[in-house]
Amino acid sequence: MGKFIVIGERIHCISPAIRKAMDQKDPAPILKRAKEQLDAGADYLDVNIGPAEKGGEELMKWVVTLLQENFDNVPLCLDTANKKAIEAGISVYNRQKGKPIINSADAGDRIENIDLAAANDAICIALCSKSGVPADNDERMVYCQELLERGMGLGMDPSDLWFDPLFLVIKGMQDKQKDCLDAIKMFTEMGLNTTGGLSNISNGMPKNIRPIMDAAMVAMAMANGLNSAIVNPCDTRLMETIKSCDIIKDNCLYADSYLEI
Amino acid sequence: MGKFIVIGERIHCISPAIRKAMDQKDPAPILKRAKEQLDAGADYLDVNIGPAEKGGEELMKWVVTLLQENFDNVPLCLDTANKKAIEAGISVYNRQKGKPIINSADAGDRIENIDLAAANDAICIALCSKSGVPADNDERMVYCQELLERGMGLGMDPSDLWFDPLFLVIKGMQDKQKDCLDAIKMFTEMGLNTTGGLSNISNGMPKNIRPIMDAAMVAMAMANGLNSAIVNPCDTRLMETIKSCDIIKDNCLYADSYLEI
Repeated sequence: MGKFIVIGERIHCISPAIRKAMDQKDPAPILKRAKEQLDAGADYLDVNIGPAEKGGEELMKWVVTLLQENFDNVPLCLDTANKKAIEAGISVYNRQKGKPIINSADAGDRIENIDLAAANDAICIALCSKSGVPADNDERMVYCQELLERGMGLGMDPSDLWFDPLFLVIKGMQDKQKDCLDAIKMFTEMGLNTTGGLSNISNGMPKNIRPIMDAAMVAMAMANGLNSAIVNPCDTRLMETIKSCDIIKDNCLYADSYLEI
Repeated sequence: MGKFIVIGERIHCISPAIRKAMDQKDPAPILKRAKEQLDAGADYLDVNIGPAEKGGEELMKWVVTLLQENFDNVPLCLDTANKKAIEAGISVYNRQKGKPIINSADAGDRIENIDLAAANDAICIALCSKSGVPADNDERMVYCQELLERGMGLGMDPSDLWFDPLFLVIKGMQDKQKDCLDAIKMFTEMGLNTTGGLSNISNGMPKNIRPIMDAAMVAMAMANGLNSAIVNPCDTRLMETIKSCDIIKDNCLYADSYLEI
């Protein structure tokens, strides 16, 4: 994929300001967060409207159109448990800057999101879990194979499945971090693309530590092949680290100004 | 080796203040730099007295004694082209906190430093180069084997050879960084210890960028198995990253206070 792809995670209905803006169809708070993330270097914007059982289709269409009209058809990652809302979002989505991403399928109840991606020529994040945390990488690989076969059986290009190893919280699962890094390496060696909700690792840590730990993790994961993540692009340390790792991996040419590019 | 081992690089005769202190046998500037590095988390201190053709033996003995007497037998890395000075340093060295490290042997003119390490039960940094920069990892592996065989033939434990892949400057050799990371991985998979002058990668970069690039590199290298480096422990970002990677690698248990430990 060349340079690391940053999917900005901050348009998320868990934020009270975004929740309210979505409820009231108020563009300003959503556009503000979008601009902040794009200015900080996000490649894609994730749009998480939650379960959205009521009015999800209309809401997703509204947000997709709002963001793409205001930010030159910025590519988006459509994030909701409501499949009809994803389809509705894709129906108004402009592909000029990149395919839509569906966030996400897993090997359990959400496997049909692969079908949705195949039917709509979309990218699909493929979470290597079924019900909860995979016990080990044998289990992750079983799910990876299931997801891959489902997509390829429907005619998807494997590069349109972005495999998520399921990043785990260090506080409680410190001994599982190596597994996660190894899983990224295995997927990469299979030629697959990888992504994930990386900042999950630092959940529950003091606020000042989280950017330090997340940056260390993204560099280690990039050494193992990670080529995308769903993160907060306004985390300066994280973005500096991603850009530096892209230089070290020779994904883009070094210039003294590379952090500002 | 467990936790990553930080070898502090700042007692180096290339610094005018240290050069003068060494010439005049003035303890204060040397003790100051030693304390700064130990307070910042250095495990070993490198003592670089340069070629030291004249008076090297006496000088090394003086610095070794000075540092060990003042800092509870801090373990040291003896760094000079003068072999007699290394032997002199070892003759007064107290091993209570760790074996002395000889910095360094290579597969060329300096291969006899392996013999010196074997004869003195010391650790030896084994630089995988002969004359200049190795063209690729096939060449690095040839040198690694030569150094390993030399040491083992003399009865050394392989764990006392710390293999240095030779970190290369990004400005000019950007496309060689992956080789260096791969070499660390290969050495690690052979069960070998690794180290190196990591900050070489950012030579020539703007001063504000160097800690950012070095921190990204150390995390990537630690993901590949690097378990020691010769660095500036007063670089806060670098040390935070090393400590975070040690947590991710489960080399030490997480606590919210891990950065202060």
